[in-house]
This record gives sequence, C-alpha cells and structure tokens, in this order.
Amino acid sequence: MESKETNILLTFSIIGLLLLGNVGSAVAVKDNLNNNSDFNDSVKCKPVAGSEAKIKNVIVMVPDGCSQSVQTLARWYGGEPLQLDEMVAGTVSTYSADSVITDSSSAATAFATGFKTTNGFVSVGPRNDTLLSIVADPAEEYSPLATVLEGSKLEGRATGLVATSRVTHATPAAFASHVDNRNNESEIMEQMVYEDIDVVFGGGSQYLLPVADGGKRTDGENLTEVLLDRGYQYVDNETEMLALSSGNAWGLFASGHMQPDIDRAEFAPEEPSLSNMTEKAIELLCEDKDGFFLMVEGSQVDWAGHANDPIYEVTDFLAFDEAVKVAVDFARADGHTLVIVFPDHNTGGMTIGSYYDSEYDDTSIEDVVTPLEGMNITAAGVAKKIGEDLSYDNIKSQLKTWWGIDATDDDVTEILELYNNGKDLSLDYAISKVISRNHTVIGWTTNGHCGEDVPLWAFGPDSPAGYMDNTEIAEYIADKLKFDLAETNEHLFVEVGEVLSEDNGDGTLEADEYLLDTTDPENPVLKIGDAELPVNKNLLIKDGVTHELDGIVVYAMTDKVYIPTEALSLV
Amino acid sequence: MESKETNILLTFSIIGLLLLGNVGSAVAVKDNLNNNSDFNDSVKCKPVAGSEAKIKNVIVMVPDGCSQSVQTLARWYGGEPLQLDEMVAGTVSTYSADSVITDSSSAATAFATGFKTTNGFVSVGPRNDTLLSIVADPAEEYSPLATVLEGSKLEGRATGLVATSRVTHATPAAFASHVDNRNNESEIMEQMVYEDIDVVFGGGSQYLLPVADGGKRTDGENLTEVLLDRGYQYVDNETEMLALSSGNAWGLFASGHMQPDIDRAEFAPEEPSLSNMTEKAIELLCEDKDGFFLMVEGSQVDWAGHANDPIYEVTDFLAFDEAVKVAVDFARADGHTLVIVFPDHNTGGMTIGSYYDSEYDDTSIEDVVTPLEGMNITAAGVAKKIGEDLSYDNIKSQLKTWWGIDATDDDVTEILELYNNGKDLSLDYAISKVISRNHTVIGWTTNGHCGEDVPLWAFGPDSPAGYMDNTEIAEYIADKLKFDLAETNEHLFVEVGEVLSEDNGDGTLEADEYLLDTTDPENPVLKIGDAELPVNKNLLIKDGVTHELDGIVVYAMTDKVYIPTEALSLV
Repeated sequence: MESKETNILLTFSIIGLLLLGNVGSAVAVKDNLNNNSDFNDSVKCKPVAGSEAKIKNVIVMVPDGCSQSVQTLARWYGGEPLQLDEMVAGTVSTYSADSVITDSSSAATAFATGFKTTNGFVSVGPRNDTLLSIVADPAEEYSPLATVLEGSKLEGRATGLVATSRVTHATPAAFASHVDNRNNESEIMEQMVYEDIDVVFGGGSQYLLPVADGGKRTDGENLTEVLLDRGYQYVDNETEMLALSSGNAWGLFASGHMQPDIDRAEFAPEEPSLSNMTEKAIELLCEDKDGFFLMVEGSQVDWAGHANDPIYEVTDFLAFDEAVKVAVDFARADGHTLVIVFPDHNTGGMTIGSYYDSEYDDTSIEDVVTPLEGMNITAAGVAKKIGEDLSYDNIKSQLKTWWGIDATDDDVTEILELYNNGKDLSLDYAISKVISRNHTVIGWTTNGHCGEDVPLWAFGPDSPAGYMDNTEIAEYIADKLKFDLAETNEHLFVEVGEVLSEDNGDGTLEADEYLLDTTDPENPVLKIGDAELPVNKNLLIKDGVTHELDGIVVYAMTDKVYIPTEALSLV
Repeated sequence: MESKETNILLTFSIIGLLLLGNVGSAVAVKDNLNNNSDFNDSVKCKPVAGSEAKIKNVIVMVPDGCSQSVQTLARWYGGEPLQLDEMVAGTVSTYSADSVITDSSSAATAFATGFKTTNGFVSVGPRNDTLLSIVADPAEEYSPLATVLEGSKLEGRATGLVATSRVTHATPAAFASHVDNRNNESEIMEQMVYEDIDVVFGGGSQYLLPVADGGKRTDGENLTEVLLDRGYQYVDNETEMLALSSGNAWGLFASGHMQPDIDRAEFAPEEPSLSNMTEKAIELLCEDKDGFFLMVEGSQVDWAGHANDPIYEVTDFLAFDEAVKVAVDFARADGHTLVIVFPDHNTGGMTIGSYYDSEYDDTSIEDVVTPLEGMNITAAGVAKKIGEDLSYDNIKSQLKTWWGIDATDDDVTEILELYNNGKDLSLDYAISKVISRNHTVIGWTTNGHCGEDVPLWAFGPDSPAGYMDNTEIAEYIADKLKFDLAETNEHLFVEVGEVLSEDNGDGTLEADEYLLDTTDPENPVLKIGDAELPVNKNLLIKDGVTHELDGIVVYAMTDKVYIPTEALSLV
C-alpha cells in the first residue's frame, strides 16, 4: 500500500508545486519573521537589531473593490501561488453609516479614522441619517476626523500615499483630507499638498494645476509650484521616479488616473507600475528613523469589477499582489513592519462559475484561463481601439486582435443592444458583460459594489487576525503605533467657535475674536485677531511671518472652522 | 473635542451592540479556551483536568455550498453576531482532481481522506484524467482511500455523522464509504451500516429498507434490522432522539432528505433541528474516554444556493450556526476539542447587491432584511403550496401568503417563462430567481457551484489558520489526533490480488486463493479459502463463525477487492 500512497501523494504534490504550491504549504503558523528577504538591495534601510519598538512601520494596502473570488481567479490565471496566499488572516465588515453597501470614501474613512460615515464623505462625521436611525450628535455632523496618517505624522513618522487612480480619489483622499463630498477633488488636493506628506505617488496632476495650465483648479492656485516651494522633488514619469534617491517627493504620472496595469505598455509606457511606486516609496520613507506610515491602493481592481472585465480584474489584482510582495519583502527584512491588506468592499460580485457555465463540474483549467490569456488589454482599451466605427466587422476584428475572441454576430448584437448608442451601458461595460457571459466561465452579479465582508490579509509582528469591522483597523494601527486617535482628533481639530468669540462686526477683531473672510469665495481665510489662516492649508500668517502648522484648517459645510491646537498658541 | 469623540463612539458602539456587536469585539487573539460554557448541563461529559492529549475530540462542520457572503447576509437577517464571527480563521481552496469547480463528493473526499478525486467519486482514487493531465498511477484509480473517521475509529475513538440530507448524500458518505458514484446510495448505506459508526443522525431511511417495505433496496437487505441486530438504538423522531441517554444510535428522521430548517414547522414538526441532533450526538459520543470524531453537515445551505433562494439560504445557514454554537460550547467547556468549520465549495454565487439594485450605495438594513422577513417557508415550500394551479391569481396569492411579496403580473409572467411548463427551471428555482431579482437586493451568478476559495472557521487548541487546500484539512486532523492516514490506508485496504492468488478455477479454493462470487450480483462475496467476506460489510464468516472486522470489504469497478489487513490473519 505504501506505493499507492506515494504515487497519489506525488501526483498531487506535483500539481501542487506546479500549480498552486499549496500541498506543501505551511498551515496555521506563518513564518512571518523569516529574514531571507528578496527586497531590492538598492533600498538603503537595513534592519536594525535590538531595542526598537516591536512595530515601527505600518503599510496599509487596499485592493479596492474585490473579494476572495478575485484572489482565486488571479491564482489560476497567474499559475502560481500569490503573495497574498501566505497572508490570509480573516475578514472585514464594510457597511457605512448610511448603507449596508459602502462606497470607497466612507469605507476609507472607517479604516483611516475609526469612524463610520455617510457614503461620499471623506474623513468627516456622518450626516444625521445613519443606519437604524441612530443619530450622531448633530453638532458632530461633517466635523473632520483625524486619520492614522495624521496621527503617525504627529508622532514624527514619515508618511506616504501611493495609488493608481488620481491621488485625490476616495481611498487616498480619506487619509489626508476632510471634505463632505468626494468629488471636491480640488479641495482634497489642496489639503493633501498642505498635509506635509513625505511621499505621494499616483495620478491626478490636473488637480494641481490651474485651468489656464491645462488643470482643473479655478482658485488661482498652482500647487505644483507650491510643492516645489515647500521643498518637494516633483517627478512625472517612471525614469525620474526611479532616479529619486532620498528626500520628499511627489510623483504624479498622469493628468487623471493612471493606466490599468495591462494597458500601460500600449497606452502609457512611461508610467511606473504599482510595485515600482511602492518600492520607491518605501525606499524614501524608510530613511526616517522614527518609522513610517504608508498607504498603497490598487485603485483599479474596483473599476474592473464595475466593468465586469475579467482580464482587467485579474491583471490589476496581480499587479497589486506584486506590490504586496515588495512590501512584505521589506517587512521581512526589517522585522518591525506590519503590513495589513484588505479591500474596502466587494465590487462586481465575481465568481468562477456562472449561469452560462452549465457544465460547471467539468471546468478545466483551460476553461478558466484560456479565454483570459487571449486578452491583452482591458475592455476599455478594446473600446478605445473600436473607436467610432461600430460596424460588426470592426467590433469583431478588434475583439479578435485584442482579446483573441472569435465573437459571433449574436455577441455583437448583444453588445450593441446593451450599449444602446451610449444610452445604457458604456461600450466597455457592454463588451465585458457579453464576452464574460458567452466566452468565459466567469459570473458577475452587479456593475456596482456589494455588501458582504471582505478578506483580511496580514504580515508582520502582532498582525491582526479574525473578523474585524473596518473601523477597528484604524484603532488597531493607532494602538500598534502607540498613539490615540481621540487625542489626535483633539490636537488637530479645535472648532474655533468653541474656544473663541465670533466677530461682532464692529470693524475691529480682538485677539480672542474670529471671522471667516469669504471675500474670495474660492479662497476663504479664517482671521483670528491679526492672524490669518487660509482654509485647506497648514499656514498661519501673522506679523508678516508664515508659520507652518502641524495640521490643516478645515471649513465644514456647517459653517464651522476647525484648526490645530497649535494655532491657538500662535494667535 | 472629547464630547465629540465620546458621542460618535457611543453612537457606533450602540449600532455595534444592537446590530453586530463588532465595535467592541476582540481582534486577533480569540479567547478560545474560556471556560464559561453554555453547553447544556444535561450533557454528561465534564471537562477533565490534567494530563489528557491536547486534542482529544475533533468536530468537523460543513455548511455545504456557501461563501463569506452568506455569513454576512445571515448576520444582517439575524440581527446579531454569529457564532462563526468569532471563529474566522482563513480560507480553503476547493478544486477537485478533474475540475476547477468541485462537486460535494470530491470535495468531501479531499477533506475526509487528504486526496483530490474525480467529481462524483466518494473516497476512492481519481479517474485517470486529472487537471493538467498529470495522471495518477493507473493502478490506483478507483481504489478506496481511508478517511479521518475510519482512522479515528481504529484509534479507539467514538465516531459520528450528522446531516440534514440523506446520510448517504455526498458529504457524510465520503467519511464512511468508498464508491465511484455518489448516486450508489444503496451501496453507500450498506457500507455505512457496517462501518460501526457510533452515532448517525439525518435523513434517508429509504436506503435502509427493501422496496417491499417502502424503501429503495433491491438487494434483499433490511438494514434497519441489521442495525438493531448490531445493538444500535434506532429512532425516527425528535422525541425519541431526545430520550436517548447513552449507547450507540442511528436516527433517520425522514425517508429522503429532512426538511429545510424554515419548513420544518409547516411540513415535518417531528424532525429534530440540526443543533438538537448535534447536541445529542456530542452527548452520546463524549462518553468514550478515548475521545471522538464527529462530522456535522448543514447539507441544505447548498440547495438554497442552487435554488437562488435567499430565505432558505440564510435560515439554513443560521440553523447551522446554531449547531456550531452547540459544538463550541462543548469545546469551550471540554478544553480538548477542536472544531473546524468550512464549506466544501461555494454555490449560487450570492452577493448583497445586484444589477437590479442600481442605487446600491443607498441600501438600508430594511432594503436587505425586510423582504426576507416576510418569507416564512422556502421557495420549494411556496411551489408546494402553489401546487398544480398555475393561475396568476393563485401564484400571487401564495407568494403573498408565504413570502409576503406583492408580486406583479410581470413577476408571474417571468416565473412562468423561466418554468416553461417544467421544461426549463423547476418552479421553485423560477420563483427564487424572479423574486430575488425584482424584490430583494440579493444577486446570484449561477444555479451551480463556484470555484473560488471558501472561508475557514475554527475553535479550540491548535486550531488551523491561514490558507489551506481542502486536502490539508484531513492531514491536519489526522496529525492532531496522532494517527497517520497512510498507515490507516495500509491497514484498511489491502488489494487482495496483491497478496493472494486468484482462484485457478479447478473447483477447489486453497487457503491462499481467492475468488469473487457474483452469483448474486447484488450481493457479491469474496471467498478466500473457506472464508467468506461479503462485499460492503465488515464481516468474515469462517467455520460457522462470523468475525466483525475493523474495516469493510470494498469491491472497485476495476474488479479489484480490498480488505482490511485483519482479515488476512483470520483466513
């Protein structure tokens, strides 16, 4: 009987090694602190032995909008175990203050600040209409909520944000700005610039520049110049980014969002990959002897889910997994770095298996992988290639060229019906839906988000495990980095009306009086005595001297203004 | 600022406590060995202090065919934290030997034996057409594979199986039988009866009885009588089951499958719940001082997924969660019990959010829960109530009565189109699909299984965590119970042809010769010398004496016969 055991074991060990490597995988006890790192030798930070804090650095990584299913599909498509496979740790609940199904900004607010908020809000308190009709104190609606990035900065740590979207998009925004509408990206960018973050990499330079310079700003600001004035290095392509060797840096590599990972070679080869941005960010941040906090978002996994685009989904997830590998390699070598990874919510409801795969229990690896292997750009890329010519011949030809799909006339008819001359689905959504259905075994439930718990992955000392609410992640990080978010809140956001008297309009402004000067409605300024504090900035100007504060001035739609405690001692 | 913190914290603590209880939940370190048990005091087994093995008992629990999403939906529907929420531990990959999407029998074979097999096979080696075309040794095709239940029994532990399906259905079958077709339930039942399992509770008495007695057996056997002859107590309703106080017992509470949990009150009030069966099984098994192995299946979560029936899904999952609570309460009090819980695969691809919930980011708890709260039986129950009268009035009236749904004429038209006079979907499937789509926020991708990884939940000493393959679960259990499945295989399944000579047909049968007597094709008998070993039983009859073996005789379709080593010493 021994030979039988051996043979079958051997067979599946081979499958395991070749394919998934999980037959021999370690279970239960993860070798989290093993020191044999692959982290690029060019990174200057070397592990320090001895008496350091157990956790000195935290890297939060968010594959926006996905589920366990995407991990499984990416593993089959990639043909080998993922970095994340070694890091499976638990699950995270994602509901927001006003919806069982969260959006990205309220989800990011939860894990950045520890508080649930209203969908669409960015690190400010929820509107008075929470789930179950349990109301927040009306006084706290819209008030800014301190983030783990801000708390880390106050403790002297270096901070960084990396994303493949505009950096002003919901997830990075929630770590470094406080607005009641995620679409106020001009305001978000201004706050972000004045947050004194050490490293920011991603897309979205249009929100740095005035309209006259091809940007979106209407407030007269040129924030690129501000960044240079404040001593940042500013880069806009991969070569320049890779050449950075120390110091603070912003790198915005696209006017809007960056390209999907699989589209980069075709449409924007000068952009860096997420893993390259992550590696460079760590290299710059780890120079700080006090440690660092870094947030990395694989922003577009979510958009792939929205589009129901299977190749966009797996390739952007694999690009994210590569970035996780970079972070874990650093963490393994460093020994004092916690890497926490989780989606903000699920999107698209993808499964391996669908109504259209009726022979589901006879699904070969080829059935799963082969259709995807023929796809060389996203559906949005295919739509771009199709252009204006919506003839059957052109659509079929582009689908053949870029997706390796022999589309039938029925496929094209379905695509054009869903598209409905632009009135219903966008062309890329229509393509993804029809080709997923008719040419893959992939199922989807929605073009939107979903409400179920999402996976938690983690690596490093004291890494979290089990079932957490998304708000608990912020508390967990603050706890491990030895600060208290409530104290950070108290320190950064004093409501001016609670400590000073409103100007009585008699033409003079005493030292304990304030008014909000909205003469220029796009650039309101808080005045306290003879000090000026422009909104969305960390500046206090008095007697011709400009002081840089340790936090920004936030003006909420409740007409309340919030300033750092530090400002009170300067006025 | 302190009041703000306090207020918002309070607000969400209240939501947490009222709703999900997760704001204050412990993260990372689970209090697995806390001794404050709720386990029914009537259970006689008390925790034993001191020198026992760390793990004495293992309880494997399978909510057949579901995902993380079902856990989340059940939590919202139930309105409170689940037992499983405290047990989130990792994920499990599920692919079978021949398909990325497994069926229940190959999945159960993997976690019962440690080997992947062909879909449809029950604890026998795979056909020669595995994934990636890597072949198993042809000699091992169809050969029986020892299970963790069999291994536990050989070590002297008590064993038990509990299910809400027929006990001969795929998952329980894979722990206690060896056949190449999961539909051979007569054969599975015969093997199961002769496996000397201490406790078996579930449905499926039709496979105990001959056709003449209303059963399905055509081999002349009346296995109920066999069970009584072998000293089992036999019960068929909840009252009798609850009255059991010690000893071995079979309880089959339905001729076929038991009722869905939510349908029991309406259609079969005499059946016990899954948690009652689990509690009684533990009570009987824990009398064994050597410990026990128990497998509990919430069999019908899977069928709810197949049907895309949201109320069936959440109520059978919650009934399963109740059973998990019973097991964990025992384990907590006992201190030497490992509870491992995982689905065998996902089914239905359910998500909270669907194409038909376009305002997904404004999804209240009521949007999720209210439609389900009106549903008082499964869709199959509604179909039963509708009966033959497929008029619009009757369908709408039954949907109103039993599901609280104000169905429109369009709903009924869609249902009847999908049903298509029985030619396409069954009526319950058609009802579930249309009502899910038009009256809930629940999405589905398939009426079949899915291929993605599933959740792992666990409780107890040395509980597993992280990402495992389903085969690793069997190895993990054997390791913790200190036996070796390879040795169990060697002990239980000797291929007769490898150790004895085939009868040469000269009319005599020497002591070292064997033949398979198929005179009665439904009751083949292996003859070795003058000993007789009926197939599918654990008996050896020689010199008028019947010996009970420690394993069963298995006849594979390769014409090979496998017997326990013990038989060789008796012939």
